[in-house]
Amino acid sequence: MRIIITGGGGMLGQKLARLLATRGRLRGQEISHMVLADIVDPKPIEAGFPVACRKLDITDRAAIDALLSEGVDVIFHLAAIVSGQSEAEFDLGLNVNFFGSYNVFEAARAMPNCPRVVFTSSMAVYGGEIPESIVDWTCLNPQTSYGAEKAAAELLLTDYSRRGFLDGVGLRLPTISIRPGKPNKAASSFMSSIFREPLQGQEAVCPVGPDYPHFYLSPRRCVENLAHAAEVEAAALGMNRCFVLPGRIHMIGDMVEAMRRVAGDAPVKLIRWERDPEVEQIVLGWKAFILPAKALKLGFVADADFEDNLRYFLEEDIER
Amino acid sequence: MRIIITGGGGMLGQKLARLLATRGRLRGQEISHMVLADIVDPKPIEAGFPVACRKLDITDRAAIDALLSEGVDVIFHLAAIVSGQSEAEFDLGLNVNFFGSYNVFEAARAMPNCPRVVFTSSMAVYGGEIPESIVDWTCLNPQTSYGAEKAAAELLLTDYSRRGFLDGVGLRLPTISIRPGKPNKAASSFMSSIFREPLQGQEAVCPVGPDYPHFYLSPRRCVENLAHAAEVEAAALGMNRCFVLPGRIHMIGDMVEAMRRVAGDAPVKLIRWERDPEVEQIVLGWKAFILPAKALKLGFVADADFEDNLRYFLEEDIER
Repeated sequence: MRIIITGGGGMLGQKLARLLATRGRLRGQEISHMVLADIVDPKPIEAGFPVACRKLDITDRAAIDALLSEGVDVIFHLAAIVSGQSEAEFDLGLNVNFFGSYNVFEAARAMPNCPRVVFTSSMAVYGGEIPESIVDWTCLNPQTSYGAEKAAAELLLTDYSRRGFLDGVGLRLPTISIRPGKPNKAASSFMSSIFREPLQGQEAVCPVGPDYPHFYLSPRRCVENLAHAAEVEAAALGMNRCFVLPGRIHMIGDMVEAMRRVAGDAPVKLIRWERDPEVEQIVLGWKAFILPAKALKLGFVADADFEDNLRYFLEEDIER
Repeated sequence: MRIIITGGGGMLGQKLARLLATRGRLRGQEISHMVLADIVDPKPIEAGFPVACRKLDITDRAAIDALLSEGVDVIFHLAAIVSGQSEAEFDLGLNVNFFGSYNVFEAARAMPNCPRVVFTSSMAVYGGEIPESIVDWTCLNPQTSYGAEKAAAELLLTDYSRRGFLDGVGLRLPTISIRPGKPNKAASSFMSSIFREPLQGQEAVCPVGPDYPHFYLSPRRCVENLAHAAEVEAAALGMNRCFVLPGRIHMIGDMVEAMRRVAGDAPVKLIRWERDPEVEQIVLGWKAFILPAKALKLGFVADADFEDNLRYFLEEDIER
């Protein structure tokens, strides 16, 4: 069982690699080899099998072909230019998120063994003129270039799978919270930072009201779902290989109360409530009401409660 | 008003060019120049303005850049590899239908005047696990490579429009009937040939029963809708530039009775009813129940009745 993770240096790539290292097995087989590939040198991972780190650019077709030609059974294709940067640098986003994915899919197609390709898509594929509640057959009408590139790559993944070029599974990730690390300029940054910073003893600003609803998944549950995606039977995936992962719809106020239950009053007091009309204008356009029926039927799972998200952060990611 | 038609040598391209030649105006301006571009030399068109014919391959980025750099206000991008061939020759279909469209959109983006780009997509973007009735927010789940390539190009068209790179309108065409010419190997070929051949005094085989329902548009109404797409206000198009054109849902038996009303009993007697399970298996998978609310609101129109389709064929296309 040979595994490649693109974006293997990123937050999810590293957590996924550590999960696979702990498990040692995937699809009923022992993992014999894993490659973490990223645009910057990925941090090495301790494992009971060899783990190689490769610095490469997925827009370089020859580099991707060479990477896969060493042999691969499961590719986790996580590498991407994030939403904000794809909006600011259109050609870069299109080249990495669409043409880079095409390169990965073509390299997989060239393999004799029809590898499983687990691709991370995004809720950003939804938007525009769609009903309030998103179901498995709601159209993709992205309102960012990032979403458009992910949606177009999804279409290729399903078609390549239908043709037997590869065996794809595309997962639209809910907003991941609590992300470790630093706040960033994404409009969604507060959805992690108002918990992460206070739990680390620092102030954070909440730019929306306590009744703002959104759809969340913890990093830990997310990578467990990525591993599950490598194992789910192709026959069960049906005619669309891409679907939204389960998450939980929470209101900000309820999430803050969950933090109070898990960590007491002190961190809650470090949140400054300052509504920011600019942020609200963006995030109120995002869809929160998602019915991930297909994913649930396939055995993907959400967190039980936001208290889980908080506990996972305290266990795995807190910087003191 | 400078116009380019890719696929200008094809059936719809030629009819559109003749319509524009007759009208002489588009978007309230006199047409000053038109180019018909195609992979084979397009047939010249008589018009009161200069019409150039160009033989070129849209997968050749430099050729497309050169074509547009002469100046253009409206591009009708009709060039495509058809469904059957895209399924048989995957790389050719992807290169023309997706990468060729990308070339056209990029060339349009390079123009200073944000040209209107009218793109022909297809009902083939629908399929798979969707409800029986297709509405404007039904997801695209194509089950052919042709459909996947058109759907991916649609996503680019909407995103390029949102960013102001071009001003796009994508139309998903119903099945065009009655097509002039010869029968072909498409599973849908009978949907024209059981009328065209009998009206031309020849036998034709109907491989489905009289109760088979499907969604149709005449070639004449189709090119009128393409011209309308060049004129509809960008502000009215909303957040998804691509939508299904209006058509009519007819059952084969009703269409045959329409032919009896328009042309008498003789052609009807030239239809041989021989059910073909192979054809039925394909065409019964196609969706017939379409609610094209957005297109109707924007002023696109269906044929009044299948008798219209028959009359247009007798007026424009019959070969005696």
